[in-house]
Amino acid sequence: MPTPPNPYAPNPRDLLSNVTRFQIIESTLREGEQFANAFFDTEKKIEIAKALDDFGVDYIELTSPAASEQSRSDCEAICKLGLKAKILTHIRCHMDDARIAVETGVDGVDVVIGTSSFLRQYSHGKDMNYIAQSAVEVIEYVKSHGIEIRFSSEDSFRSDLVDLLNIYKTVDKIGVNRVGIADTVGGANPRQVYELVRTLKSVVSCDIECHFHNDTGCAIANAYTALEAGATLIDVSVLGIGERNGITSLGGLMARMMTADRDYVLSKYKLHKLRDLENLVAEAVQVNIPFNNPITGFCAFTHKAGIHAKAILANPSTYEILRPSDFGLTRYIHFANRLTGWNAIKSRVDQLNLQLSDSQCKEVTAKIKKLGDVRSLNIDDVDSIIREYHAAVAGPSTASLFVDEIDN
Amino acid sequence: MPTPPNPYAPNPRDLLSNVTRFQIIESTLREGEQFANAFFDTEKKIEIAKALDDFGVDYIELTSPAASEQSRSDCEAICKLGLKAKILTHIRCHMDDARIAVETGVDGVDVVIGTSSFLRQYSHGKDMNYIAQSAVEVIEYVKSHGIEIRFSSEDSFRSDLVDLLNIYKTVDKIGVNRVGIADTVGGANPRQVYELVRTLKSVVSCDIECHFHNDTGCAIANAYTALEAGATLIDVSVLGIGERNGITSLGGLMARMMTADRDYVLSKYKLHKLRDLENLVAEAVQVNIPFNNPITGFCAFTHKAGIHAKAILANPSTYEILRPSDFGLTRYIHFANRLTGWNAIKSRVDQLNLQLSDSQCKEVTAKIKKLGDVRSLNIDDVDSIIREYHAAVAGPSTASLFVDEIDN
Repeated sequence: MPTPPNPYAPNPRDLLSNVTRFQIIESTLREGEQFANAFFDTEKKIEIAKALDDFGVDYIELTSPAASEQSRSDCEAICKLGLKAKILTHIRCHMDDARIAVETGVDGVDVVIGTSSFLRQYSHGKDMNYIAQSAVEVIEYVKSHGIEIRFSSEDSFRSDLVDLLNIYKTVDKIGVNRVGIADTVGGANPRQVYELVRTLKSVVSCDIECHFHNDTGCAIANAYTALEAGATLIDVSVLGIGERNGITSLGGLMARMMTADRDYVLSKYKLHKLRDLENLVAEAVQVNIPFNNPITGFCAFTHKAGIHAKAILANPSTYEILRPSDFGLTRYIHFANRLTGWNAIKSRVDQLNLQLSDSQCKEVTAKIKKLGDVRSLNIDDVDSIIREYHAAVAGPSTASLFVDEIDN
Repeated sequence: MPTPPNPYAPNPRDLLSNVTRFQIIESTLREGEQFANAFFDTEKKIEIAKALDDFGVDYIELTSPAASEQSRSDCEAICKLGLKAKILTHIRCHMDDARIAVETGVDGVDVVIGTSSFLRQYSHGKDMNYIAQSAVEVIEYVKSHGIEIRFSSEDSFRSDLVDLLNIYKTVDKIGVNRVGIADTVGGANPRQVYELVRTLKSVVSCDIECHFHNDTGCAIANAYTALEAGATLIDVSVLGIGERNGITSLGGLMARMMTADRDYVLSKYKLHKLRDLENLVAEAVQVNIPFNNPITGFCAFTHKAGIHAKAILANPSTYEILRPSDFGLTRYIHFANRLTGWNAIKSRVDQLNLQLSDSQCKEVTAKIKKLGDVRSLNIDDVDSIIREYHAAVAGPSTASLFVDEIDN
């Protein structure tokens, strides 16, 4: 059977879609530094920056040099590394911060200011006129130094739409490289994201960058939907680390985008380095890789139920949308459990280089399932049962009991 | 300022939306049993079923009684518990399985069959006519026993749309209670889900149930979008455990739905039991709660950057879309780090019941940030600096150095 067309490929009617030409702004060294457990010393920051650059991220975003003296000198040190990735720093919409930022040698400055009524009242206390004035001043100053500038609202989805579009239009006219939308509290949902990005796309001519928190579990989906609506750049961090439970994760976005355009992703990013990169950051912030992490979670490519194992053995695409080999990983057929099927056991028999007929495999599968009902099985248990059975039938040929495949 | 209307509430133009009247089909004891590490003995299954029932889930789905002898007797035992939740079992579209299922005493049967070209070729090898015939036979048999019946396709998003709508229309006419859509390989994205559910909604009159795998990180967002398009029932498991990296998690869905309709969620589900429920299942399958888990991840309600801490102290809604107290949890302002701001330190000074002026708090914050640049800080470090500073200034009044708030 020829491979059918990919039903997850971008919809050709989506004329706004940028899912096949997205870019990554990697923020482990900015948003990630706001993760509860994060403390990166200079050496660790440089190690992470080099690893991100080697992976192929388009931009690396660093903590504001105004945050602390060490933040400033680390920013300068990373700028001097000569990485392929462009180096950004993330500052408040304030001339004091902008002056410090442009002196560090960064390729671009990401400016942010809270525009929601919540942040305007309880954070900085400024009105939209003040915001627009500061934005213009900061943007023109940064541009005069010949480096990239992004202007982002904070808490965009709880901001007044007209206020938002007004300020984006203003900064677009001055000539920012990008405007940013941020779901700072992690409450946005995909269709809401699609609407806002599409509307913004009709108002500005510059690129659109999006930043999604994951409080309600939508950070990866929102990123994808934003690209469909015309955004080009997505903020991510390794393992999604950031404020609270974090943002869109680099690995999660890779999983998502591989489904849409595998060739593009493989041409840009070294996916087989993802696991090392995640381990590097996990160790630095003292967390474990979540058991259910996309791609690198211990069970991401483990197949258990008999009916799944059977089909996977015939054609991996049946139950896998991602190919483990693309990430330097391997598939695992879990056969040591009571949901196992005889196809999985047959595959194990072959791995053990033993000779058993199909009906014999079915018979030994029944024995394994019976023990699996009594207790948790490990591979050794199954191998012992198979070897014992094989030894028993190896001599005189045995009339085999036919055991139905009972998996679900 | 009066509380502004919730921008994450359901869009009143979405006439199809069921986000304010969804139901949960809890599948930890079926999909969850397919998780690599899962082995639930009878006692554990009963403990989990009771906890789910107490939490308030609408349905509890169990492994097919055809999977193994123990699966059958466990299913019978759970049916006899007299829980408020309806008990379902999940079977292949096959009369042998259906006969065993109806004898267990379940309230309903969930029938599934693979309809994609992948599964038709590599799994069961049947064509659509055969599938329709088996479906009709199984459905009429189950209905004749007076219990609920759901018919679901498997791998729905890689199935031919006309084939799908044909079979759904057929089973709807016979009178199934629900039809199911399953993203079996976890590749679907939200807008695709919206389209398929909306189309299906125009073809059938029964309820629509959805099942989303999380391979590409969209399981929670897809569930929400399916409800927006007219689905009513979502399959979940505790911590999302299931085949590979699992499905929509119960906690993740709760976080998502709380954002849309807090009153409805609070009226139906005992959210303060979520943490215990997750711990029960995590322990049973020997995994840790992921550090970034929605709601219960260790940092879900931890605020670190100075600017966040400042605003949170003024009004928690600034950086929180969920209220930790709704889940029996508490907020934590992380102040022992170099990104801290003087508002967070002032709050700590108050907690310690010490008297320092604002300018004194700014001065001690500068000292803390300086040490935070050198090494990772813990609470004791910060408290020592504060107490030392307080002791020094407590005597004669000191002229305070004004230290600018420098947080990002």
